[in-house]
Amino acid sequence: MTNTDLSVAGLVPSVTAPGGLALGLDIGGTKLAAGLVTADGDVRAFATVPTRVTEGPERVVRRLCALAAEVLADAADVRGVGIGCCGPVNAHTGVVHAPPNLTGWQDVPLADMVAAALDLPVYVENDATAATVGEWRFGAGRGATDMVYLTISTGVGGGIVAGGTVLRGSSGNGGEPGHVVVVPDGRRCGCGSFGCLEAYVSGTAIANRARERLAAGEASVLADVPALTAEVVAGAAGAGDQLAGEVWRETTDLLGSAVVGFVNLFEPQLVVLGGGVTRTGEQLLAPVRARVRTLAMRPAAAAVEVRLATLGARVGVVGAAAVVHARTLA
Amino acid sequence: MTNTDLSVAGLVPSVTAPGGLALGLDIGGTKLAAGLVTADGDVRAFATVPTRVTEGPERVVRRLCALAAEVLADAADVRGVGIGCCGPVNAHTGVVHAPPNLTGWQDVPLADMVAAALDLPVYVENDATAATVGEWRFGAGRGATDMVYLTISTGVGGGIVAGGTVLRGSSGNGGEPGHVVVVPDGRRCGCGSFGCLEAYVSGTAIANRARERLAAGEASVLADVPALTAEVVAGAAGAGDQLAGEVWRETTDLLGSAVVGFVNLFEPQLVVLGGGVTRTGEQLLAPVRARVRTLAMRPAAAAVEVRLATLGARVGVVGAAAVVHARTLA
Repeated sequence: MTNTDLSVAGLVPSVTAPGGLALGLDIGGTKLAAGLVTADGDVRAFATVPTRVTEGPERVVRRLCALAAEVLADAADVRGVGIGCCGPVNAHTGVVHAPPNLTGWQDVPLADMVAAALDLPVYVENDATAATVGEWRFGAGRGATDMVYLTISTGVGGGIVAGGTVLRGSSGNGGEPGHVVVVPDGRRCGCGSFGCLEAYVSGTAIANRARERLAAGEASVLADVPALTAEVVAGAAGAGDQLAGEVWRETTDLLGSAVVGFVNLFEPQLVVLGGGVTRTGEQLLAPVRARVRTLAMRPAAAAVEVRLATLGARVGVVGAAAVVHARTLA
Repeated sequence: MTNTDLSVAGLVPSVTAPGGLALGLDIGGTKLAAGLVTADGDVRAFATVPTRVTEGPERVVRRLCALAAEVLADAADVRGVGIGCCGPVNAHTGVVHAPPNLTGWQDVPLADMVAAALDLPVYVENDATAATVGEWRFGAGRGATDMVYLTISTGVGGGIVAGGTVLRGSSGNGGEPGHVVVVPDGRRCGCGSFGCLEAYVSGTAIANRARERLAAGEASVLADVPALTAEVVAGAAGAGDQLAGEVWRETTDLLGSAVVGFVNLFEPQLVVLGGGVTRTGEQLLAPVRARVRTLAMRPAAAAVEVRLATLGARVGVVGAAAVVHARTLA
């Protein structure tokens, strides 16, 4: 690791904090991140470097551990290390099973590798599960016992908190709320199935749906936009462009229908929406809220609130650290 | 209560049983049932009478308690009373909130009423939650930690077991897996929304979908059937009738897609299907299994089994009793 791609936040880590500290690590397809997080969710130090997946798991994990050591510095009372990693992972064994975004990571014993290097207890979670725990413990979901979290960016991920526990499924990999079917036998999804929520409302899918209509010759201000994104589509929809308006409306209709289903299924107090696509704010939230209010069943509909996530880009490390704080408290 | 509508099963209740006994009560729109159930799920006594909803909650509950007293007879070591009641109910307070199938039951304090009459601890659950616990503890779901249960009859209900706990939602009413959206803005559902699973695959919906096509003039052997049911549609589909085949195929496609979504969302070991429509057996199971095998995500798809419920018509009382055994064990 060179210092040129290390960007430690200005603060010198405290030696200690009430309730101890936890190290949160986040392994994504494009970047690695490390954060030292208090039991209140405050980030005392933060650093990030590119992942460089092509280097293979051993070198990537070695650089991750070096990054961790930098962030740990001379912190004391560190209770453990949480790692959010793109799935599938097995939270029981700490093994990473060939994630699509980490080419070459075939059954990597991540927990064991990091525990050996850092000499601390290590907990591995699917990154979506870690983010769910982060928003629940330290973000928009504080205090809820039942919460649905969706993160809508390149893909659609998320997790479920039910009865005060995050759901992990029988494999310990966590559930995939982005892969409920919203259009039977609809658009092909990256998961191999058809008509999944992700295949319609991810940032990628929103842009692709607009692009396909442009390619079919429909007129739109979007035809002149070189890099089409979900935000650009939303912007054009807001400005009255017909094609963009239809694409956006289909997006919020399908997202809204899926959220209605989740509300009926889980009776949560909160639905929390995060990820890049939610930068469109009320343009996304208002129609989803309207669908829930008019179409979800009583008494669930009356008691649920739909709101934006609050942790932003640091949700990964905060969530991974929150997993440690939750486990070491129990 | 007259003896003419009481049908106690032949066995005289044992005075006691290892692990104690629990009384399970089931309140439906058409009948009341009571069963004395061991900690192994054996039914030692069973009785049922018509509900007669029009008599109002006080008289119905009085007859329910009389039925319970008959079934209890001189049983000893009865740990408590579980009541499965059509929802919405609040499992925390034991109050029944205006179920569509129990006209006039506006905020009925069911747990308090029954506890006063029988002098035993009383636990009220949504009937679908109770049935889920029944199949999980004593039926097709024994040993699972993560299970999805769907009961497909007049409506579509069910429940979720996740991480060894049945989900109850923030209101304590349990979730409604029959009201996830499978066709965006599709058929009107009894819940007030559109395109719910129940609006397509309930027994009522299957028959209605066939009826609508007959009314539109399509040719089919079903045109000569006076009382159209899901089983009749399945039978005609199996015999090669085109209209019935298309209706049945749409049914299994949509049910299969919903089950794929549940498998991705919960990563269960088991999906258990019960209710009258599952009397069609392999004709329903085989295409649902095929969808799960080909379209659900790894590793969830590889580990899940789809099978039929085993408790039949007594699932209500067995499930209600199982709730008591689970609570008094804990």
